[in-house]
Amino acid sequence: MKIWQKNTDVNSFVEAFTVGNDRVLDLELASADILGSLAHTRMLHHIGLLDSTDLASVQAGLKALYREVEAGLFVIEDGVEDVHSQVELLLTKRIGEAGKKIHSGRSRNDQVLVDLKLFFRVEIESLVKSTQALFDRLMALSEQHKAVLLPGYTHLQIAMPSSFGLWFGAYAESLVDDLAVLQAAWKVCNKNPLGSAAGYGSSFPLNRRMTTELLGFDDLNYNVVYAQMGRGKTERILAQGMSAIAATLARFAMDVCLYINQNFGFISFPDHLTTGSSIMPHKKNPDVFELVRGRCNKIQALPNEIALMTTNLPSGYHRDLQLLKENLFPAFRSLNECLEITTFMLEHIRIKEGILDDPKYDYLFSVEVVNDEVLKGVPFREAYRNIGLAIEAGTFKPQKAVNHTHEGSIGNLCNSEIRQAFGQAVGSFGFDRVHEALSKLLADSQ
Amino acid sequence: MKIWQKNTDVNSFVEAFTVGNDRVLDLELASADILGSLAHTRMLHHIGLLDSTDLASVQAGLKALYREVEAGLFVIEDGVEDVHSQVELLLTKRIGEAGKKIHSGRSRNDQVLVDLKLFFRVEIESLVKSTQALFDRLMALSEQHKAVLLPGYTHLQIAMPSSFGLWFGAYAESLVDDLAVLQAAWKVCNKNPLGSAAGYGSSFPLNRRMTTELLGFDDLNYNVVYAQMGRGKTERILAQGMSAIAATLARFAMDVCLYINQNFGFISFPDHLTTGSSIMPHKKNPDVFELVRGRCNKIQALPNEIALMTTNLPSGYHRDLQLLKENLFPAFRSLNECLEITTFMLEHIRIKEGILDDPKYDYLFSVEVVNDEVLKGVPFREAYRNIGLAIEAGTFKPQKAVNHTHEGSIGNLCNSEIRQAFGQAVGSFGFDRVHEALSKLLADSQ
Amino acid sequence: MKIWQKNTDVNSFVEAFTVGNDRVLDLELASADILGSLAHTRMLHHIGLLDSTDLASVQAGLKALYREVEAGLFVIEDGVEDVHSQVELLLTKRIGEAGKKIHSGRSRNDQVLVDLKLFFRVEIESLVKSTQALFDRLMALSEQHKAVLLPGYTHLQIAMPSSFGLWFGAYAESLVDDLAVLQAAWKVCNKNPLGSAAGYGSSFPLNRRMTTELLGFDDLNYNVVYAQMGRGKTERILAQGMSAIAATLARFAMDVCLYINQNFGFISFPDHLTTGSSIMPHKKNPDVFELVRGRCNKIQALPNEIALMTTNLPSGYHRDLQLLKENLFPAFRSLNECLEITTFMLEHIRIKEGILDDPKYDYLFSVEVVNDEVLKGVPFREAYRNIGLAIEAGTFKPQKAVNHTHEGSIGNLCNSEIRQAFGQAVGSFGFDRVHEALSKLLADSQ
Amino acid sequence: MKIWQKNTDVNSFVEAFTVGNDRVLDLELASADILGSLAHTRMLHHIGLLDSTDLASVQAGLKALYREVEAGLFVIEDGVEDVHSQVELLLTKRIGEAGKKIHSGRSRNDQVLVDLKLFFRVEIESLVKSTQALFDRLMALSEQHKAVLLPGYTHLQIAMPSSFGLWFGAYAESLVDDLAVLQAAWKVCNKNPLGSAAGYGSSFPLNRRMTTELLGFDDLNYNVVYAQMGRGKTERILAQGMSAIAATLARFAMDVCLYINQNFGFISFPDHLTTGSSIMPHKKNPDVFELVRGRCNKIQALPNEIALMTTNLPSGYHRDLQLLKENLFPAFRSLNECLEITTFMLEHIRIKEGILDDPKYDYLFSVEVVNDEVLKGVPFREAYRNIGLAIEAGTFKPQKAVNHTHEGSIGNLCNSEIRQAFGQAVGSFGFDRVHEALSKLLADSQ
Repeated sequence: MKIWQKNTDVNSFVEAFTVGNDRVLDLELASADILGSLAHTRMLHHIGLLDSTDLASVQAGLKALYREVEAGLFVIEDGVEDVHSQVELLLTKRIGEAGKKIHSGRSRNDQVLVDLKLFFRVEIESLVKSTQALFDRLMALSEQHKAVLLPGYTHLQIAMPSSFGLWFGAYAESLVDDLAVLQAAWKVCNKNPLGSAAGYGSSFPLNRRMTTELLGFDDLNYNVVYAQMGRGKTERILAQGMSAIAATLARFAMDVCLYINQNFGFISFPDHLTTGSSIMPHKKNPDVFELVRGRCNKIQALPNEIALMTTNLPSGYHRDLQLLKENLFPAFRSLNECLEITTFMLEHIRIKEGILDDPKYDYLFSVEVVNDEVLKGVPFREAYRNIGLAIEAGTFKPQKAVNHTHEGSIGNLCNSEIRQAFGQAVGSFGFDRVHEALSKLLADSQ
Repeated sequence: MKIWQKNTDVNSFVEAFTVGNDRVLDLELASADILGSLAHTRMLHHIGLLDSTDLASVQAGLKALYREVEAGLFVIEDGVEDVHSQVELLLTKRIGEAGKKIHSGRSRNDQVLVDLKLFFRVEIESLVKSTQALFDRLMALSEQHKAVLLPGYTHLQIAMPSSFGLWFGAYAESLVDDLAVLQAAWKVCNKNPLGSAAGYGSSFPLNRRMTTELLGFDDLNYNVVYAQMGRGKTERILAQGMSAIAATLARFAMDVCLYINQNFGFISFPDHLTTGSSIMPHKKNPDVFELVRGRCNKIQALPNEIALMTTNLPSGYHRDLQLLKENLFPAFRSLNECLEITTFMLEHIRIKEGILDDPKYDYLFSVEVVNDEVLKGVPFREAYRNIGLAIEAGTFKPQKAVNHTHEGSIGNLCNSEIRQAFGQAVGSFGFDRVHEALSKLLADSQ
Repeated sequence: MKIWQKNTDVNSFVEAFTVGNDRVLDLELASADILGSLAHTRMLHHIGLLDSTDLASVQAGLKALYREVEAGLFVIEDGVEDVHSQVELLLTKRIGEAGKKIHSGRSRNDQVLVDLKLFFRVEIESLVKSTQALFDRLMALSEQHKAVLLPGYTHLQIAMPSSFGLWFGAYAESLVDDLAVLQAAWKVCNKNPLGSAAGYGSSFPLNRRMTTELLGFDDLNYNVVYAQMGRGKTERILAQGMSAIAATLARFAMDVCLYINQNFGFISFPDHLTTGSSIMPHKKNPDVFELVRGRCNKIQALPNEIALMTTNLPSGYHRDLQLLKENLFPAFRSLNECLEITTFMLEHIRIKEGILDDPKYDYLFSVEVVNDEVLKGVPFREAYRNIGLAIEAGTFKPQKAVNHTHEGSIGNLCNSEIRQAFGQAVGSFGFDRVHEALSKLLADSQ
Repeated sequence: MKIWQKNTDVNSFVEAFTVGNDRVLDLELASADILGSLAHTRMLHHIGLLDSTDLASVQAGLKALYREVEAGLFVIEDGVEDVHSQVELLLTKRIGEAGKKIHSGRSRNDQVLVDLKLFFRVEIESLVKSTQALFDRLMALSEQHKAVLLPGYTHLQIAMPSSFGLWFGAYAESLVDDLAVLQAAWKVCNKNPLGSAAGYGSSFPLNRRMTTELLGFDDLNYNVVYAQMGRGKTERILAQGMSAIAATLARFAMDVCLYINQNFGFISFPDHLTTGSSIMPHKKNPDVFELVRGRCNKIQALPNEIALMTTNLPSGYHRDLQLLKENLFPAFRSLNECLEITTFMLEHIRIKEGILDDPKYDYLFSVEVVNDEVLKGVPFREAYRNIGLAIEAGTFKPQKAVNHTHEGSIGNLCNSEIRQAFGQAVGSFGFDRVHEALSKLLADSQ
């Protein structure tokens, strides 16, 4: 029952194989594609390859299309291969021959490159915003519950006193470092490949600095061979940035699944946010967090997939690169949803107080007690021996209060410093400069 | 012939299993460990936990040890578990009881954390320097051979004219973006975890800002739970930074292996740098580049290995983390060697001129000729049809010169812009601030 | 514009998040789910938990549904969570209360486990068939072109004479070993997990051997905790089996892309199977093979993704496992298509004859000539020196014929032995035993 | 301070780079290399390329060397590149010119290929033996503790009654399926590549079936191009087989770390097998299991590393392949040690009885009680409602006994069936046939 046994039209089999999922995935690129064309055609006019009349009708036509995309009205029609063809087709249908001129001085290769970078910028910004929301939630919880103690584990063994303030705050601070990786991706994305043509440049006197400015890029991918080489590489660095956030979320989800387990019992969620069983009333399956963990582990596998698909390919475009979209594009939505749903769940988390009243946690405080003695002047070895003997004799009575004062400890969380670091990280992306450029590009009456 | 059938001492089996390769790998951490202790003990003195006499002898003892490490005289003795124990042991042997006090207010966990970060900073700087040398070499070659044309391939099919200027320059510019990823790793590494103790802080009134400044860190890992969570995460981000460079090198090595192949024949190396055969005189095996490619692909597998070893572990220290050193530490040396040997080989690369004289490359120029006509005013469709007909009739005679003038193209490589971008990237690490702090730490007569 | 800022119904957000793509992916499991229920209900009747009347109506209802699935008429309705619910819903709608009884003595967990294994068996068989078709094609080409010589490369340097007979035959034999890995997956899949309930068994007196026999499984997953642990593990081993085939295809595709390149020029395809350009007439982009390579590299990333998603999870069901379907299910179709299209392309491949007439391949024969001398009695060193001197003097004239006679060499390909090994590998799966059991299960008038 | 700034001899830098770790790693191949030469030279004699006198002295010399290797006396001397050169060097030193003849009709490539396969066979057998020991231990524990109940978790939530019998038995049965993957590796390894020369065969009339029989291989890698292509592929399939076992061990280690945690407290180990703290007397760090988990996760990363290093390389030997040894060879020892130490630890594991007496586990039995009612004739819905009401009213009193009787459940573990399946799996490797062949090869007085 194989394809050629079915009298199937061979060409349509080959075509279906080569087009793949592009018609669906490319929809995501529609806005980016139009923005790229808006800039490209203004540049063509600037260098004398498009006259003013054509430019005016092209710009008007593209802007109308852009509004349709924003309104969710844009589709890729049957029989049209990809988003680039659809845009050209519609444009030409509406404004006539001028619509075909938008492809001068451009190759499908650099068009895709610039579309991807414009699209990635949007996705990165969206991820940063979702990350910000989660960060704020974690910080708020850290402040709110800073006085509630938790057992701290090493080797998954009860070890030292910790607190909900520390626990929530730790994941917030983790997001600060994650943004550093995402910033690397942003830097790599925020350079203009347009004008590199098929990866070897063009004999047209393109003005690549002009499109760079119009599209709000920080800089150019100068070398045209490198601009093409950025495909795959950009995706991988971006996937690494996403993986950084995903790793933080996955670990947090693991903690949640452990802490909601009845042997720990440190936290809980309202019934409608967990899955239960009417005859196992204490069963509160943390499905949401298990799926956050699973999705985030899947995202963590992405950079390696991209590496496997691109390594050992010589320089120059290869069609393999088209397939990089397939798992990367859905990952944006997936990670965003994970960030959103975690933030949402944390609106409803319930914290157990008095956990350390349980005598099984008494020994948590033994190191504290030794240190206290030392600070009071008792030599360390003597203090240590005293406590050890008391524990052995069963007379050890911990005073279950902690007096940690140094930076980042239970009594001094430094949340404002962490907040500041996060703010600086977000600020350094410079999303506003991009918005400004694009607004101008869309608004200019060219 | 299994272990317990051999009357082997069970404890020594367990001990050997748990110690693993630490005694070898830890040697790399010796300088870092001493620097950490120099800062830690000055802080202990500052907060009143170490008196001035003890401080003086500890500082002198540690500095002497530091000089021994630099001189290659430091070893981890048999029966000593790791570098930290060895340092304490030697110190105590030499200066007496005071040597034991350096561990107050510190846990093995945060000691390892700070050692790793100090060590990683050194390794990152070393990689940046090796990358700079390769970058300079590539730039020089790009300039030197900018007029020598190459065929450019898409789909590995002969497509458009390229040049050695573009080819070398592309890999140089690739290194600029690679540094962005390595900078993310640097940022994550350049924060101080010392004082986080076992991951839950301490009841001693530690001054973590002081050690941060003494060790030249940019900032603290504030939250102590996060400081511990940085283990594994730091390694992964660092491995990603290394992978970025490795991916560039691996692709370059692939190109070299292809271009030195006799069917391409674009480049060659002197005989003593390739492996040949006396009866196959044209066989010039590019072993060095094959090994660069293989090593770099291996390095690209590292981030995934680290992800597999750390994902789904709940927060808090786990002994698994010890094993992260095993493949990461040798990767530093391996990547450095790849950078060095590539730079070295490029001192000797030989470029073939006149490649495009071969008629098989004639069609490379067909797009050029069409564009030329268009620039002269011939409508595109007409120009295209004319050239197509000429090709069909066998009368197409390309004028084998390219006139690419836009940014990043054959005639306008923008190498100075690329050079500037690289310089900025290197400058933003701020290695000097680190050197200054550490010099001061070692010099101060405390 | 985040979800909770949109007044979206929170529950529907959580529900959408947890259901994920299941409604689409589960369609693939419909036949398997019905087969599992056919067997399960016969067993329930056998142990007295379902009376004969109910059994009869359940069996008739399920068989009708099975026919609808086969006819492509089965859908999962809006608001229905998964395939299992849809089957029960339809059944109950049609046959009344008895439809609800099919879930007795079964948990959703073991139902999914058995569905997956039944589904995987079908997919493995389909892959084996597609592999057989490709194998046959490669063998036919190997025989057909066994006399046509090719240069053989080591280090991608021209090294020794090879042949199209060897080249095609090598990939055929590679598939024999690939089947060994797929057989491991088959063995793991062909054991019955049904009856393990939620992973801890049941207090009902289930007869698991009976369902094992009815469903044509080779054996049981005995231990119920292990049966559950097989989730994730089965998928990974299956993905490894697919990766084995994918790795063979990817390498073959790389060879094709190289050999179709104009610098090699060993093979070609008709124009309608490559992508060309009217003004670059010799450009024949091998898009199909680039996409085969890309898809197969993506499949090779799957086992690692599964490892990342499942490692470090303690035993027992976790919801993360649901997500394993997302990339695995499409991979079956993708690999099948890669096998089919490669087979199809190979119906049309064109072989260049006389490649080695080009003098650049002369030195290929130097080793042959030395060996010939040795076989004629000339001491090796002397023969070697003679040829070396002739080459140096430019008087070396290879007789471009090869006389390789040993097993597996140019003159003695052993294709019949390879064919036999492949046949044995296919035979050892035992698909017929499975077909027989399932036919009986569907036919029995229970 | 880079290499070329140090006046280092360039050639020695290149040489060191290309030799890499081969001199250390190759030591593992010494026995295999000698066995290969024993077979190869007998074949050379058989086809008339080695006279009887030379054969006799070569065989005697090689057998003497083999005994030295076995006795641990063999070393690779400074300045000798690899094990193959060392063997030839020693042989020639001892028996004269005849020693040099062992390389006739063989290339370094197929010599390495056969060495690796012979070595891998030994390592696979060793792993199977270690796996057998662990399997036996797990089975014994399953039997011994079959009556001791455990809580069973789903979603890491308390769900259903389980038992130590089930828990230990599950991991034993997991090893049965793991062996299926290792068998695939064995099949791939147990075919003879010798005689494929540099990957394109030889003009000598080699008798490859003869060496196949002498070395106890099941069959040949027929096609010589495929024989070479097996490099990398064999390693990957082998690494997958190791990963299967590693995944089982890693999950078991995760369970152990959880169950030894004080919030669970299901198992413990004697103090000398865990790491404790004198003032935290209940701290029993499971370092051994954390390291088993970490090592096994590292092994699980191996197949992907190999894929990254070999994908997209065209057919034919590439020097990259040399590097595959670096992480694979140590993995054999590491996995063996993990198996051994887990077996050893399980000699000392202590099981907590009466876990389910704790009222927090009461609801575990709710499903049991419902099922019991059903089996007594109460309609399911009524039984379910009754229990639900009792739980709500706080009057639910579980009878904490389980009556699971079906195959693989608490009361009917089917351990003998599992044992039989394991035995069959081990038997199917056919190690004895290999031993016999090799004994004969070493014993024959040629």
